[in-house]
Amino acid sequence: MKRIGMLTSGGDCQALNAAMRGVVKTVLANSKENVEIYGFLDGYKGLIYGKFQMLTGRDFSGILTKGGTILGTSRTPFKTIQDPDENGLNKVEAMKQTYYKLQLDCLVILGGNGTHKTANLLREEGLNVVTLPKTIDNDLWGTDMTFGFQSAVNIATEAIDCIHTTAASHGRVFIVEVMGHKVGWLTLNAGMASGADIILIPEIPYDIDKVIDKIEERDRTGSRFTIIAVAEGAISKKDAKLSKKEYKEKLKKRTHPSVSYEIAAQIQEKTGREVRVTVPGHMQRGGSPCPYDRVFASRLGSEAGKMILDNQYGFMVGYKNREIVRVPLEDVAGKLKMVAPDASIVQEAKLLGISFGD
Amino acid sequence: MKRIGMLTSGGDCQALNAAMRGVVKTVLANSKENVEIYGFLDGYKGLIYGKFQMLTGRDFSGILTKGGTILGTSRTPFKTIQDPDENGLNKVEAMKQTYYKLQLDCLVILGGNGTHKTANLLREEGLNVVTLPKTIDNDLWGTDMTFGFQSAVNIATEAIDCIHTTAASHGRVFIVEVMGHKVGWLTLNAGMASGADIILIPEIPYDIDKVIDKIEERDRTGSRFTIIAVAEGAISKKDAKLSKKEYKEKLKKRTHPSVSYEIAAQIQEKTGREVRVTVPGHMQRGGSPCPYDRVFASRLGSEAGKMILDNQYGFMVGYKNREIVRVPLEDVAGKLKMVAPDASIVQEAKLLGISFGD
Amino acid sequence: MKRIGMLTSGGDCQALNAAMRGVVKTVLANSKENVEIYGFLDGYKGLIYGKFQMLTGRDFSGILTKGGTILGTSRTPFKTIQDPDENGLNKVEAMKQTYYKLQLDCLVILGGNGTHKTANLLREEGLNVVTLPKTIDNDLWGTDMTFGFQSAVNIATEAIDCIHTTAASHGRVFIVEVMGHKVGWLTLNAGMASGADIILIPEIPYDIDKVIDKIEERDRTGSRFTIIAVAEGAISKKDAKLSKKEYKEKLKKRTHPSVSYEIAAQIQEKTGREVRVTVPGHMQRGGSPCPYDRVFASRLGSEAGKMILDNQYGFMVGYKNREIVRVPLEDVAGKLKMVAPDASIVQEAKLLGISFGD
Amino acid sequence: MKRIGMLTSGGDCQALNAAMRGVVKTVLANSKENVEIYGFLDGYKGLIYGKFQMLTGRDFSGILTKGGTILGTSRTPFKTIQDPDENGLNKVEAMKQTYYKLQLDCLVILGGNGTHKTANLLREEGLNVVTLPKTIDNDLWGTDMTFGFQSAVNIATEAIDCIHTTAASHGRVFIVEVMGHKVGWLTLNAGMASGADIILIPEIPYDIDKVIDKIEERDRTGSRFTIIAVAEGAISKKDAKLSKKEYKEKLKKRTHPSVSYEIAAQIQEKTGREVRVTVPGHMQRGGSPCPYDRVFASRLGSEAGKMILDNQYGFMVGYKNREIVRVPLEDVAGKLKMVAPDASIVQEAKLLGISFGD
Repeated sequence: MKRIGMLTSGGDCQALNAAMRGVVKTVLANSKENVEIYGFLDGYKGLIYGKFQMLTGRDFSGILTKGGTILGTSRTPFKTIQDPDENGLNKVEAMKQTYYKLQLDCLVILGGNGTHKTANLLREEGLNVVTLPKTIDNDLWGTDMTFGFQSAVNIATEAIDCIHTTAASHGRVFIVEVMGHKVGWLTLNAGMASGADIILIPEIPYDIDKVIDKIEERDRTGSRFTIIAVAEGAISKKDAKLSKKEYKEKLKKRTHPSVSYEIAAQIQEKTGREVRVTVPGHMQRGGSPCPYDRVFASRLGSEAGKMILDNQYGFMVGYKNREIVRVPLEDVAGKLKMVAPDASIVQEAKLLGISFGD
Repeated sequence: MKRIGMLTSGGDCQALNAAMRGVVKTVLANSKENVEIYGFLDGYKGLIYGKFQMLTGRDFSGILTKGGTILGTSRTPFKTIQDPDENGLNKVEAMKQTYYKLQLDCLVILGGNGTHKTANLLREEGLNVVTLPKTIDNDLWGTDMTFGFQSAVNIATEAIDCIHTTAASHGRVFIVEVMGHKVGWLTLNAGMASGADIILIPEIPYDIDKVIDKIEERDRTGSRFTIIAVAEGAISKKDAKLSKKEYKEKLKKRTHPSVSYEIAAQIQEKTGREVRVTVPGHMQRGGSPCPYDRVFASRLGSEAGKMILDNQYGFMVGYKNREIVRVPLEDVAGKLKMVAPDASIVQEAKLLGISFGD
Repeated sequence: MKRIGMLTSGGDCQALNAAMRGVVKTVLANSKENVEIYGFLDGYKGLIYGKFQMLTGRDFSGILTKGGTILGTSRTPFKTIQDPDENGLNKVEAMKQTYYKLQLDCLVILGGNGTHKTANLLREEGLNVVTLPKTIDNDLWGTDMTFGFQSAVNIATEAIDCIHTTAASHGRVFIVEVMGHKVGWLTLNAGMASGADIILIPEIPYDIDKVIDKIEERDRTGSRFTIIAVAEGAISKKDAKLSKKEYKEKLKKRTHPSVSYEIAAQIQEKTGREVRVTVPGHMQRGGSPCPYDRVFASRLGSEAGKMILDNQYGFMVGYKNREIVRVPLEDVAGKLKMVAPDASIVQEAKLLGISFGD
Repeated sequence: MKRIGMLTSGGDCQALNAAMRGVVKTVLANSKENVEIYGFLDGYKGLIYGKFQMLTGRDFSGILTKGGTILGTSRTPFKTIQDPDENGLNKVEAMKQTYYKLQLDCLVILGGNGTHKTANLLREEGLNVVTLPKTIDNDLWGTDMTFGFQSAVNIATEAIDCIHTTAASHGRVFIVEVMGHKVGWLTLNAGMASGADIILIPEIPYDIDKVIDKIEERDRTGSRFTIIAVAEGAISKKDAKLSKKEYKEKLKKRTHPSVSYEIAAQIQEKTGREVRVTVPGHMQRGGSPCPYDRVFASRLGSEAGKMILDNQYGFMVGYKNREIVRVPLEDVAGKLKMVAPDASIVQEAKLLGISFGD
């Protein structure tokens, strides 16, 4: 008998179901033992409080193309995972207790950065853990790619494509705010894919005057409109010099709903031009995964299944140089994969005439 | 010789190009005279200031599927059309002067409500005018349908579809704010198409307690999430009792960016639930027109072309009971087509269990 | 207690699930009695052989956007419905027996032309029947629109859009064969939506020389390529003069896989030009319903639900002049809604320069 | 002065325009010299017969998202490139003559396998050549990826997605024939992305009995339908043993339009089951490039532009281990990148339960 626990944690994204289907199909089709699947509900919460559903192969049939996660998810910040809950319960101990009580052989955990810190902690506590890199931000260390990313690029690109025709018709400056947390992968790719003229990402702090220079250069050369793709984590050169604490304080006092609105106000004030902001927001996490993500998540899931068949634990299944690889969890946890300001993709974008406001 | 002036005015939408292509293809293929096309740039501005491009059939080739408008557009509010411009110019006279100077036979004007008021004024001033009903709001009197509407429904629906999977995964209340100006057609259709649980439109003022009742009813019956489609013009019962002036004053003082954020705050406060807001915004005007709008706009354009061939002016080309019809401009201008609160589509939506918060 | 039987019959299409969800949501939300839903499997077969599943509201949750039919379907030609099956079973009697044995109050039947003939027969036999007009062909008498149609138009249009870019790049003649059985609605709309140069539909027999004239006219005026949308039921003027029997005989001897290949061969032979054929085929029935179909099918379903609540039977729920209406089943069965060769939409298409080869 | 010739050759695909835009934007934005762009029409034909257009930056504006190629393309098989044309013209000499007569500094050539052989020949003849890897087949040696591939995967996947719902509704066996010439990349990825049950590719010859085994296994376990993704170049084990010549002979005698119809007939005959075939065909080359391809082609184009700025010739711009690289043309020409039958992606697919019929 093989008892497998499974959970999805953190913000949801596309292809979570595809990845889980990959694990389960692989184990069920190739295990010589009986297999039991325990699906914990709403992320680590399900593991902490012992809330789960017994699942069979049938539950994973037909979900390859389905967005979201059939298990539900929630955010359980790593910061608070070691604090007792409101009833004084030790959450880490509670998770271990659920694991041992159900006599689980392993846990399959799908999540992003925060999730991986907790997963690594559980590994350190002696649990058998295998993880899968889920996030639209593509900011996980140890893997070239995360699933959800390409689907989110598609949605953000479609949003900018739509804005493109209306911007051109009205001769306006348009800002589209793209997700990505503290990194710029999503904005960089969606911006390049949709022909944005200016791309602002956290890794390359911007100078608002350089942004305006580009807008005015376009005006001079007869381009009636300018599209700016702004990462939700974009930061000005001035703010980048602040300490973390000072910046947090400043953000608290910000009257604009987000950085994009602040930039819009600055451009409007300095140029007198009409600027519009669009924020696709949570749309970027939703909908059916794109074919790339379906294949990719299935492959990762298959490898995780193989690891379970081989009793190999303590790894995240990642992707390196076009091969599926196993990355030790301790190498992944707590690190962020950022866009290097001199990465070749950035250089290529600059050669194409895209301004990063730097 | 036939000299045709053409302009697109007001907020842009999908299928403007398809409609113009329809007019031009029809006239060029069927006119016995030579034809000259004068494309006025950026709406009425182009007509006022005599800015135009001479266009040929080739300019209209390949634009059937292209979003936006190849002529550019701008908003020139009817309210101000009779006021002199900043240099003291009488705009109405200026338009007439352009018309007569270029010896135009007619003007083809594509636009929404405001545009039609000005078009009707030009007709009253003796110009030959034929108009086409463009707006994603579908609020034009005299026609069952406007082009742009179905494409915007598609985009708003896709947005809610994306939100659906993430709402379900996180068990959240999600509000998606849909365009539509002062009417609810877009929200009603996108809401029904995407399985929204609550739909709030201007024509049916809402009671926030009824909205919360529905959310709590869903909680009780095991539905973890609730999707609310809110029209940008939605209004509470309380506010609906205010005079126009009082309401405008109140809006000015609103601290929330839009009605959706206000509703979100109220739900959060009263229920303690996490509520997220998404505003697809200008995306809804953009992108390639859907097949429905391409066919529809082409048919309208073809009829407008036929009217030009027949020297029939003073009409909007509309759609009634599945037939293309000619509607006198004086019947169209200044009227709004709203959702009747007891319309059969509303009743059907209610039978399906959708709450309108009333 | 209300006992409702439900089945989907004939070729599947988009929005079958949306329509059934509409019926069930309406009945469950508004019935004062308990309700039992009997879902018969694979069309009339399920009714004949008593194969069904008991369904609850939960089974209809989340299927609004899902293609296909959760009940399965099959073709049971009306011609053979009165013949005994291979075991000598009287099928009509068997259906009645299932109906009475389960003490059903009514049958909800979703289908196209063939399905409606059988549904009408069951009505004549005394069963309570309400039907919903399902078909991508839009050929049902008594309703302006059928669900599935607009979704199929979208898929066929996307297919031709794709072909457009490759045709333009290679300067080729391309034929896209569109479904539609014996009528041309689908081809006409997809052809107009995608800018096809020639549209061949069953209702307007074509002359191959006129088709070639149009191709050569395009060559002369500098258009390197020609797109032809051909209905699967397109017929030449010569063949249209044959008797039904003679035509059937001729079809049997046809060496080409379909009419499109025959036309391609004729064009190639007479002009020496390279002609390519694409047949999207069953794709046109599949995938998620478009927003238009989701709203439309939900509305129809809601009305059917209301009829059940009111014990009103013997009708198809249809759509006339933008209103949901009830059409007596005897008026629907056995009639075909075709494109009139002089319909205004055809005239408009011709004004736009589209050739019908007539 | 920098004089750049540019041409696209072979079957068209998505992102050809994006790639050319990348080259031109990069050169125009960064060259210190004046630049002239000579766009040769319809592939090598334009170079042979000196047919070209002078292009400016404006011609490449707004084409990032446009399918096809603004230059047109044609197939000029390498086999025949050294044969004189029908007028006795030496084609290679003619191309050189055009090149020298126009005083070109270099040629940018976008194409697939055949195109690269000719490009390498021109390099050997002393011309400055830089190439870009265009093909939906992803079969070019020296690069991990070609542009067009991911867009084609998307279209083929959508086709199978559509078929999925209709197959499930009718309980049928469905074959979707996917492009890919002699390699299986496209079929493998589209098959995995759409949850195909059986995938047949040229690199892994199939045994029809194994295919049928899988169908029957699915029947036994309650799956009513089976989806088979078949590469247009799929081959049976028996046929794989034939010599090239024998196989060609056999193909000539094949009565079925393609391998899929042959397989369908065999399954029908041996199992009595209804089998349907869908062939999306040229659709797979068309339409707007997906965001992945737009970014990828832009990056490749940018690098090609940089090579022109640096006067570096004789290379294809490729992609290796997530970096843009320069691959000597002599290493690329005449080689095919195939799916290794034991590639990890194939193993993963098998673990997921997908049959390759081997």
